Amino acid sequence: MPVGTRGTVKGLLPDLVAQTGSQVVLNNTYHLLLRPGPDTVQKLGGVHRFMGWPGPILTDSGGYQAFSMADINAVDDDGVTFRSIIDGREVRLTPESATRVQNQLGADIIMAFDDCPPSQTVQAEEADPRLARALKRDAIGRRGMDHAERLRIANERTVRWLERCKAAHGRADEQALFGIVQGGTDLDQRSWSAERITNIELPGYAIGGVAVGEPAEEIARIVSHTAPLLPEHKPRYLMGVGYERDLVAAVLAGVDMFDCVLPTRNGRNANAFTAGGPIRLRNAAYTEDPSPIEPGCDCPACDPARHGWQAPGPFSRAYIRHLFMSGEMLGPILLSLHNVRLFQRLMTDIRRTIQEDDWEGFAARWPQARPGLGQVLPAV
Amino acid sequence: MPVGTRGTVKGLLPDLVAQTGSQVVLNNTYHLLLRPGPDTVQKLGGVHRFMGWPGPILTDSGGYQAFSMADINAVDDDGVTFRSIIDGREVRLTPESATRVQNQLGADIIMAFDDCPPSQTVQAEEADPRLARALKRDAIGRRGMDHAERLRIANERTVRWLERCKAAHGRADEQALFGIVQGGTDLDQRSWSAERITNIELPGYAIGGVAVGEPAEEIARIVSHTAPLLPEHKPRYLMGVGYERDLVAAVLAGVDMFDCVLPTRNGRNANAFTAGGPIRLRNAAYTEDPSPIEPGCDCPACDPARHGWQAPGPFSRAYIRHLFMSGEMLGPILLSLHNVRLFQRLMTDIRRTIQEDDWEGFAARWPQARPGLGQVLPAV
Repeated sequence: MPVGTRGTVKGLLPDLVAQTGSQVVLNNTYHLLLRPGPDTVQKLGGVHRFMGWPGPILTDSGGYQAFSMADINAVDDDGVTFRSIIDGREVRLTPESATRVQNQLGADIIMAFDDCPPSQTVQAEEADPRLARALKRDAIGRRGMDHAERLRIANERTVRWLERCKAAHGRADEQALFGIVQGGTDLDQRSWSAERITNIELPGYAIGGVAVGEPAEEIARIVSHTAPLLPEHKPRYLMGVGYERDLVAAVLAGVDMFDCVLPTRNGRNANAFTAGGPIRLRNAAYTEDPSPIEPGCDCPACDPARHGWQAPGPFSRAYIRHLFMSGEMLGPILLSLHNVRLFQRLMTDIRRTIQEDDWEGFAARWPQARPGLGQVLPAV
Repeated sequence: MPVGTRGTVKGLLPDLVAQTGSQVVLNNTYHLLLRPGPDTVQKLGGVHRFMGWPGPILTDSGGYQAFSMADINAVDDDGVTFRSIIDGREVRLTPESATRVQNQLGADIIMAFDDCPPSQTVQAEEADPRLARALKRDAIGRRGMDHAERLRIANERTVRWLERCKAAHGRADEQALFGIVQGGTDLDQRSWSAERITNIELPGYAIGGVAVGEPAEEIARIVSHTAPLLPEHKPRYLMGVGYERDLVAAVLAGVDMFDCVLPTRNGRNANAFTAGGPIRLRNAAYTEDPSPIEPGCDCPACDPARHGWQAPGPFSRAYIRHLFMSGEMLGPILLSLHNVRLFQRLMTDIRRTIQEDDWEGFAARWPQARPGLGQVLPAV
């Protein structure tokens, strides 16, 4: 699922998103709650009409952002209070209000409101000052609470909050509420959470609190432990993941759905994903390179004619580099388009490979995904 | 003609530009000369392949920008020397080199290199600090040269330079070279320039040095004087104009072609053109406005279904306002798309109105253009 944080997949007209083969688009409740607000979106007919996306939409609950982005937050057994990043006003989210907001936004899939304590992963703190600040603000940082204890409290709270979300859900016939399994990097906590969360009857379940700074092996370890604990015949959704190797490892563990900002965020920064590995289009090596971003790709940037566009040829790496060097919007647009399509191609190929059971062939086509194939291929 | 300064109509994929009904796109030689450079564009197959635009392209000569944008410039009888706004290196443009650069870029219509002394119009100096600086740098400012004398020198120089452009034009069979009539706001100078410029046999002629700060009446006065002096059966191109009233007044004077940055520049700043007048979409009045930018408009933003887009409805003013308030690229994209289409609708309607000779009907449909109809309708 491409991420449309504020009701738009950055830079891409909905018709272009559709041309990437994307089916479901994700919107962030936290952002739409603060601006333009759920009343406005509801008056305008809900998120589908609002953003002009005819396909399914999923909204997260706002929990993760409330915990990680707010300048000041306080979590208690009832909910979380934080300051709006837009105007500083105090905002309160509870399981009930987060669910009501998502009822108003009107997405097809809505997510439970969970307690997301900051990851203690060292990499996260070093790599992401925002996460480090979140850790400092949390009970772990403020009261010196033991991280395992904080995780246990969050885990129990998340179960109680899910019950409250389900009870508050006013549109269960129209919107599928998914529960979220937490538990950090502690597999026992993951098992406990999975059991309690899946005891609450819902149309789908997600794995949260993953890919917040851990190395790929750690992500795979958590996911391959947790995914099989979720009902097999309901959608399993891994939130916020990831790179090619992470996706294929998770699919092999039984995950069905993913969202990630990488394709669009990296695209905006001139970084293209290709099956052969990432390329950085600001690199001077591409100054006169007439080839498309990824030869053979069927995206509108690499193969406009296939999409019925009148064009004298593919958009060249040289042209896209020029656009980025000149600060032109079309650079981010073309690379976002390519990157989103690349991940849809990857997922299509994974589906085909599951049917044909030819993982060697898959690994040859997607060398970047190779490290995630440990379950089916020997390490090289 | 929408303006694609650096080889892209800002924010719009070429296929979207085509969906606005645009035929010719303009590129700026000055910008492409400095980056990525004419050698690179030529190696990549010329501007059409470079930017992915299958239709005709027009390049200006770089003269206007060299005079108005460079931090340091010096003009002599042979050409102009200026510093690159990108890396500060000294660049020299002469009639020969400007023509050669345009031969390399490979547009269908190329423009003569002319001497463009800064306008003395008071409004320009007050409104545009860049033009005021240009005036100070010019001989007018540096040596206290009389403005009329400077204009006369520029006018004579422009004729000699046009002869040199024509002689240097190496691809006359493939690229149509247009001459440019100068003369500022002095109608005698305009007459002199038109006579001398049109004495040089070329496939088309332009009116330059207009809309550099003058009021609408002044633009109409210059254009209605100058346009009839150009050959009737060759294209007459008014450079860098303008608003609805300016366009219709110029058409009535006999002008055939226009380029202007207004549709895209205003679009990027949340200003939409509509037949009923401009609207500013950041205005809080549109916070919950479900209507399209301009009801009845056939552009992809106002009527996506007409363009074969799967969409639950038009993009609302409320949504576009939200995009601008959130700094999302899709706001500028949607408004640029609408604005470019609006001006194509205007021009289509002007063509129809010429055939049907119903200017009252036209004025009722385009009230913004009403002040430009002085030649055919009594003032109201």
